[in-house]
Amino acid sequence: MALTPYQQLEQEFRRLHAFRGALSLLRWDAAVMMPRGSAEVRGEQLAALETEHHALLTTPKVARLLERAEAGASQLDDWARANLREMRRQRDHAIATPPSLVARLAKATARAEVFWVEARKAGDFKVFAPYLTEVVHLVRDKAALVGQARGLAPYDALVDAFTPGITTADIETIFKSLSRKLPGLIHQAIELQSTQPPLPIEGKFTVGRQRQLIVDVLKAMGFPFERGRLDESEHPFTEGVPGDIRITTRIDVADPFTGLLGAVHETGHALYDLGLPQPWLDQPVGQDRGLALEESQSLLFEMNLCRGRAFVKYLRPLLEKHLQVMGPEWQDENLYRHLIRVRRAPIRMDADELTYPVHIMARYDLEKRILDGALAVADLPAAWNEALDQRLGLRPGSDVDGCLQDIHWAVGHFGYFPSYALGAVIAGQLYEALRGERPALDEEIAAGQFAGVLEWLRDHVHGVGARLPLKELIQHATGKPLSAAAYLRCLEAKYLEAS
Amino acid sequence: MALTPYQQLEQEFRRLHAFRGALSLLRWDAAVMMPRGSAEVRGEQLAALETEHHALLTTPKVARLLERAEAGASQLDDWARANLREMRRQRDHAIATPPSLVARLAKATARAEVFWVEARKAGDFKVFAPYLTEVVHLVRDKAALVGQARGLAPYDALVDAFTPGITTADIETIFKSLSRKLPGLIHQAIELQSTQPPLPIEGKFTVGRQRQLIVDVLKAMGFPFERGRLDESEHPFTEGVPGDIRITTRIDVADPFTGLLGAVHETGHALYDLGLPQPWLDQPVGQDRGLALEESQSLLFEMNLCRGRAFVKYLRPLLEKHLQVMGPEWQDENLYRHLIRVRRAPIRMDADELTYPVHIMARYDLEKRILDGALAVADLPAAWNEALDQRLGLRPGSDVDGCLQDIHWAVGHFGYFPSYALGAVIAGQLYEALRGERPALDEEIAAGQFAGVLEWLRDHVHGVGARLPLKELIQHATGKPLSAAAYLRCLEAKYLEAS
Repeated sequence: MALTPYQQLEQEFRRLHAFRGALSLLRWDAAVMMPRGSAEVRGEQLAALETEHHALLTTPKVARLLERAEAGASQLDDWARANLREMRRQRDHAIATPPSLVARLAKATARAEVFWVEARKAGDFKVFAPYLTEVVHLVRDKAALVGQARGLAPYDALVDAFTPGITTADIETIFKSLSRKLPGLIHQAIELQSTQPPLPIEGKFTVGRQRQLIVDVLKAMGFPFERGRLDESEHPFTEGVPGDIRITTRIDVADPFTGLLGAVHETGHALYDLGLPQPWLDQPVGQDRGLALEESQSLLFEMNLCRGRAFVKYLRPLLEKHLQVMGPEWQDENLYRHLIRVRRAPIRMDADELTYPVHIMARYDLEKRILDGALAVADLPAAWNEALDQRLGLRPGSDVDGCLQDIHWAVGHFGYFPSYALGAVIAGQLYEALRGERPALDEEIAAGQFAGVLEWLRDHVHGVGARLPLKELIQHATGKPLSAAAYLRCLEAKYLEAS
Repeated sequence: MALTPYQQLEQEFRRLHAFRGALSLLRWDAAVMMPRGSAEVRGEQLAALETEHHALLTTPKVARLLERAEAGASQLDDWARANLREMRRQRDHAIATPPSLVARLAKATARAEVFWVEARKAGDFKVFAPYLTEVVHLVRDKAALVGQARGLAPYDALVDAFTPGITTADIETIFKSLSRKLPGLIHQAIELQSTQPPLPIEGKFTVGRQRQLIVDVLKAMGFPFERGRLDESEHPFTEGVPGDIRITTRIDVADPFTGLLGAVHETGHALYDLGLPQPWLDQPVGQDRGLALEESQSLLFEMNLCRGRAFVKYLRPLLEKHLQVMGPEWQDENLYRHLIRVRRAPIRMDADELTYPVHIMARYDLEKRILDGALAVADLPAAWNEALDQRLGLRPGSDVDGCLQDIHWAVGHFGYFPSYALGAVIAGQLYEALRGERPALDEEIAAGQFAGVLEWLRDHVHGVGARLPLKELIQHATGKPLSAAAYLRCLEAKYLEAS
């Protein structure tokens, strides 16, 4: 029997899914296994597969099949209809950027990445500025083209590529709430913590022992080592596909928490990917619902579940077992104080739960001004330092710790940063709902039992895949519209607790 | 300026090269890094990329460009003309097998591989027989179609896919020489060695120490660890591309030679790939000249260079340093006797230099009879045991050690085995020429200096790529036509030496 247009599309997108899985493995290998001298060869392989993926997604055949399938969409069930909608979204996004612009962006970002590294070595933003300027011009072109095709404002078009379903208006509303509350909260938390600073934790904790500790915790959380790997890399990340999921962490022998919490964060991503709807894993509707929700899953595990007293109860005996530590600094309350320590500091990656969103909001302002031309690239260092000063009351000692600290803009990722903070907000909203439905949550976590949490997440978030638009998904999962209220309530309860 | 048809072809094949590099990495990862439960996902990725590679190679566009470029071939230089010839070969091979047959073969071999594993577990060939039969039928169809397209007899068409430029007539001539000499040589060598059996080597040699030893040796040979990796896997292999070459070995803690010689063997492959003509690395003419020549490079290193007295002189101090061994069994002459020990045994993979080609010749006879229908698959076990008895004077204790020992036929690799023995023959011919031109070869090797060998190989073999047909390449490298004479002279000198 001949396949329907919709069924033919499923075949095409199954192939695209396999391509993305292969691309993901090539990236994982480049970060974890590849010899240092092999970057050029790998770059050519990635470019060839990405170009082919783009070509397969934008063939006239796919366009024709989409039109014919959409004409018969009323025959399809909910899942298939949502799948068709996501196919359309992927294809329209891809075709809006002509291959010539894709190629120019690829070259410009590759160049900018090199000179970002050079500028960091030289401690001189001017080395990077002309290449960032070139990237900004091309990103503007892309934003305009995708915006036109998708009926979105240019900045919204960029956000849509990372977190579809969220607009500038949503971001502004949420960031306004955060800006109102966070500065005071940070101030109060630091005051409160200064009255009872934690005893310092010192020692040398070998990679081997830390790894055993991490594996124990990840197994308890449900990370499937028979269909996944844990490795080390400079920055923690998650790659792979459900069925072969690969996470990394960075282990610091002087600090037993960096490696563990990095791995837990990535496990949040991995468990989300593993919980996606099984029958749709190789289809667009079976993918994650964008970057902000991905980040909510990692932050829920790292911040809400693990940087808490219940987790410390579970963790302490494991620290004793694997790291053979003892003494007053390893008691529950002292460990907890370490995990929730708030500090004003210039580096986003190292920021604590409270100051992190402030870094993000500063970047959001800056990248919008750069894109609309209000801020010249040459003036970025001064504007960056000014923004940090206003929002956090600190000035980075150098551009390396300032506007050169992250690679995102060099590789063309504008419209990306907001999703980090949105992820934290969504994590807070999900956590409040989860607590409401599982009154014994703290006891479960203290006992190292994460099965209940995972079941709830699978029912309410993971198993939905991309069937619902993001805001509907959050309403469906929590019974409330997306807002910063629950998140801020969680933070206040945690950081203003009278201890 | 518009690209010529030939230049457009170069672009197309550059992309195909990147695809093959990606495929190679996916296979490497599957054997070395992939979690056990992820085979299905990886299978889908490999299939998607292979299918696309096949599709890109067989588009009407490539066919048109080939015709136009061939019409203007007189304008091209030697390299480009040879490149065009190899492009044509690749395309004609690919298009001769219709996608439906490719898909049926992929499914049948995937199934046969599963039941080959099952049959080995059960020790029962009958579990495997029906699936092998299915593969045989499909391979016959493929041989007929490719043979028609390439103007070759069916079996020659299969050989041509692995080692182009070699026909059944070549194989028969060489195997006749080997059959005449080897049985007597084996008999005499075993007699001679029985008068002075080596002292046994015993102990436990940790993986870490063996690895350091192996890395030292490989560095001396020129393996580039900054653009390559050495890992462990069940069977040693080489994957990757020049610029990111990946070899593996299997380390046995009870035996310091298995891991080392496996790694040296693969280093022979790696050095060949790394020495291919630099400006043509991403083009067909810049690829290796087929499986037999590949195998000659690995065997030249393993058998001719390393299983010899000069290498033992270099190796002994390294064994002492890394494995901290001493005693009479670690003296040069005793180590040498271990390295050239001849034994009649059923397993090809473990066979010594003298009996190895005999295993191959038995398989060659069997696979030809299976393909032309003279031998039914059901009768293979008896025919296998009969062949081993006739040629080596032994009968495997079970089919697991007999006709179930290798995976090649299960995955459809008929016409593959002869290249192993041809590789040994070519290695002998190259080694004789190399010795003739480098009288101080033994001193170099005893000093751990491999640069001269590598330079000779680059000039005479590696740097030629696929510019010349195989037999011309061998004539060019050694000044003599391909024959078994030099190989047999080397074996006689080594194994009949009065010691």
